[in-house]
Amino acid sequence: MSSPKAQPEEKVSELDGRPPESTDFANYFCTYAYIYHQKDMLEDHKRTGAYYQAVLSNKRQFQGKVVLDVGTGSGILAIFAAKAGAKKVYAVEATNMAKNARLLVEHNKLSHVVEVIQGTIESIELPEKVDIIISEWMGYFLLRESMLDSVLVARDRFLTPGGALYPSHASIFMAPIRSNLAAQRTSEFQNSMEGWAEFLHEMQNYYQVSLDVLSDGYRSEQKDYYLHTSQWTDTHPQQLLGPAAPIIKYDLHKITLEELKAPLKSEFIMHMTDGGPVDALCGFFDVLFKGSDENPTDNEIRLNTAPDPTGATHWGQQTFPLHPPIDCAPGDRLRCSVEVTRRADNQRLLHVKAAISVEGSSIYAEQSKTPREFRWNIE
Amino acid sequence: MSSPKAQPEEKVSELDGRPPESTDFANYFCTYAYIYHQKDMLEDHKRTGAYYQAVLSNKRQFQGKVVLDVGTGSGILAIFAAKAGAKKVYAVEATNMAKNARLLVEHNKLSHVVEVIQGTIESIELPEKVDIIISEWMGYFLLRESMLDSVLVARDRFLTPGGALYPSHASIFMAPIRSNLAAQRTSEFQNSMEGWAEFLHEMQNYYQVSLDVLSDGYRSEQKDYYLHTSQWTDTHPQQLLGPAAPIIKYDLHKITLEELKAPLKSEFIMHMTDGGPVDALCGFFDVLFKGSDENPTDNEIRLNTAPDPTGATHWGQQTFPLHPPIDCAPGDRLRCSVEVTRRADNQRLLHVKAAISVEGSSIYAEQSKTPREFRWNIE
Repeated sequence: MSSPKAQPEEKVSELDGRPPESTDFANYFCTYAYIYHQKDMLEDHKRTGAYYQAVLSNKRQFQGKVVLDVGTGSGILAIFAAKAGAKKVYAVEATNMAKNARLLVEHNKLSHVVEVIQGTIESIELPEKVDIIISEWMGYFLLRESMLDSVLVARDRFLTPGGALYPSHASIFMAPIRSNLAAQRTSEFQNSMEGWAEFLHEMQNYYQVSLDVLSDGYRSEQKDYYLHTSQWTDTHPQQLLGPAAPIIKYDLHKITLEELKAPLKSEFIMHMTDGGPVDALCGFFDVLFKGSDENPTDNEIRLNTAPDPTGATHWGQQTFPLHPPIDCAPGDRLRCSVEVTRRADNQRLLHVKAAISVEGSSIYAEQSKTPREFRWNIE
Repeated sequence: MSSPKAQPEEKVSELDGRPPESTDFANYFCTYAYIYHQKDMLEDHKRTGAYYQAVLSNKRQFQGKVVLDVGTGSGILAIFAAKAGAKKVYAVEATNMAKNARLLVEHNKLSHVVEVIQGTIESIELPEKVDIIISEWMGYFLLRESMLDSVLVARDRFLTPGGALYPSHASIFMAPIRSNLAAQRTSEFQNSMEGWAEFLHEMQNYYQVSLDVLSDGYRSEQKDYYLHTSQWTDTHPQQLLGPAAPIIKYDLHKITLEELKAPLKSEFIMHMTDGGPVDALCGFFDVLFKGSDENPTDNEIRLNTAPDPTGATHWGQQTFPLHPPIDCAPGDRLRCSVEVTRRADNQRLLHVKAAISVEGSSIYAEQSKTPREFRWNIE
């Protein structure tokens, strides 16, 4: 009965495409239509500053080039590209934020360079191929939101051979940490189940209805919520019990859309510097701006979302609680096999499975021959 | 790119209909698919107790009758109807909660009476007409969620002539109150605009981009959020500055779907017992269980969500901030003209406009000849 908010009432450009499919708009795009949300992202200066450096410290790469910004939002990256000397910038945005992007471009006197286009990248046409595609597509744990899909579609449709992606590379990392999250969540889960027991009594006493049969369903729902959901955290480096291990490295020029959509499977080892218990795994990502092989950057910029004593980016880290925690000693290794899949009911959300065993010379390694299995949703 | 969660994988009944349209599911139905949310509603004992009394203290009306429960959720109202002696109860639920409702019915040994059906009320067929339609369809300020639409569709499709609706009547009220909400919201709005000014400086200093042109858009977005949005409150009766005035009374047997979908327009007067300033209007509702003219209840039950010193129902009240507040003296009257419409972008949400003037013998009435205009969203 609802209609999408993104239906463009007035044209932003002759090149406008279609709005997002309405369910995807309700689930995903709607937040990006608020200036408030754009401000949240813009004032993450580790994020905005990294893009600024990636473009403005590599002006030579942008001089006289044709650039495409996928999901331009407020238009900031398109404006950076224009300031770096791009000849033409196509700035594509699916939501009504496109109208603000156009205002911003006009106000900054860059309308002769930047053309804002409203529509999904899948539905628009461009009059020419582009030399550079820039996009800030990263979600929590890199892959949440699945927006990289649209960047790869743009690459395959519009990037000239030898053209460059900004960023060009991305990696996901995991690290063993100490954290009170698992203990806190376990306690919240137990409280919730005590509340349920009281509720059952009330329903029986007040209305003579037995709801016992829903207990398993409620338990499983609450367990999913409290124990099988990762959480945004601003993790301090002192919480690390060993260095982070890369679980995957993407060369964004090479990965295919098909490979990206397939389950991500990875085996990796985390070396324990400190002893356990390991309460949680801390997941985060970085992206690199290296340009393409044919058109490399002069200054390689890295945007890193690792635990940082000066505070997290707006992505924070995703913390995956382990309960009960994994016991291990300094020098042990955690052998970890991970699978990341998209949720069947909403492709922009993720499901993570892990199997973890302890290796090394400690007694814990002896006791933990069979890998323990974990699963989490990234909401 | 997303698919609805509500797609039934297995049949609940041969009578199953279709799941909700996927955008409506993403926007609305999804929360009702959690036992957690059902528990929240069930343990609102003013709510559940009123329905229990309405059914179980009127057993004579249910004996041997055919009943339809629209949006059965956990199935509780259907179970009440069966316990009151109904011959057959059709319990219709669009989400996967239908599966839990069936479990609950079986567990309470009422499968021979209650048939749970999964699908929207608009898409199902019943093998017979029904004598009673019971439903808990009320949203914030009565009308939010627009679920009464589905009850009226059910009434027109399935209710036998002379059959009864439970509840049968509903009213919306507004009262003038003292509240710190308007002052608090105004201060939060001002803080937000100060934050914006800092943000503009940062963006200029760090990246040489001027975002001034978005200030009007941001101001209007933040004003909508802080000053033009009503809020859930548990209002204490001591906050009332005068008695609540009914703004509309519905006879649910008589109102047509067309009338319900049209803008609600009402003129009413609020009598000031205490003096102002009036910081906010407090909106709430009640529903009555009177049965139909042909089959009236023996015991008339009322479910009231008015300010209550023992605490609010889960609906609370909706508080509509007035800023600046309206000055008036004891004995003055607030003449209020209200229009409630559905939001164009999501029919389950509401938009409220009001024009208010002060009448009476005080100086405030003298000063306030022209009505002041207000508007709010109910989110």
